[in-house]
Amino acid sequence: MIIRDFNKLIEDEKSRVVSDANWTSVRMLLADDGMGFSFHITFLEAGSEHTFHYKNHFESVYCMQGKGRITDLATGEVHEIKPGVMYALDKHDKHTVVADEELIMACCFNPPVTGKEVHREDGSYALEDA
Amino acid sequence: MIIRDFNKLIEDEKSRVVSDANWTSVRMLLADDGMGFSFHITFLEAGSEHTFHYKNHFESVYCMQGKGRITDLATGEVHEIKPGVMYALDKHDKHTVVADEELIMACCFNPPVTGKEVHREDGSYALEDA
Repeated sequence: MIIRDFNKLIEDEKSRVVSDANWTSVRMLLADDGMGFSFHITFLEAGSEHTFHYKNHFESVYCMQGKGRITDLATGEVHEIKPGVMYALDKHDKHTVVADEELIMACCFNPPVTGKEVHREDGSYALEDA
Repeated sequence: MIIRDFNKLIEDEKSRVVSDANWTSVRMLLADDGMGFSFHITFLEAGSEHTFHYKNHFESVYCMQGKGRITDLATGEVHEIKPGVMYALDKHDKHTVVADEELIMACCFNPPVTGKEVHREDGSYALEDA
């Protein structure tokens, strides 16, 4: 059984806290935990906008706090994000998220993120071997 | 892209809301969504105690609200559950959860739950074909 406390990780395991332009992600579970998915608590700063395209991953994102919008760049559709709303990128959907207020999200990735990926210029995560 | 709103599901898609003895689970993602994991928001009533043993699944559980305890029945170890604490059953660990206050948890299952499982007497979920 793995037990991890978000509030301890952000103090004592800085390697699990990853930040980039206006977002921070705390990796609660990564590939080497052997669960077959990874689980992250992610913060998007108020006023920020992010375009991602996870070509190699499925991701679900559940809003725990905040307010914003997601645009499906394939269709142009815009969906409100607020507590209780989940979006799931079942078609590796390229998308833009805008945080009108700080968004705090619970995110699952399949395949699991290893922690070694970088966001590439095209908005995707490379697979470790890619 | 799948968009689901917890607050709409509990009103309009009752088939996604499953209750048993002192717990309720809202299935935000199931196997047929094709994500390779399922994602549930689960409520354990204040004062309730639950013993589960997911012999066929890995599960991670992130506490969003409430207070309680988990006992690893293999070792006897007890861990506090409070907001920010996650437990992950990477060894299909048999465990008992006690909710001192109502617990609201974000849960991921691999393989994904189909929605057709029942908790068996041994505390496990059967696989659909098992």
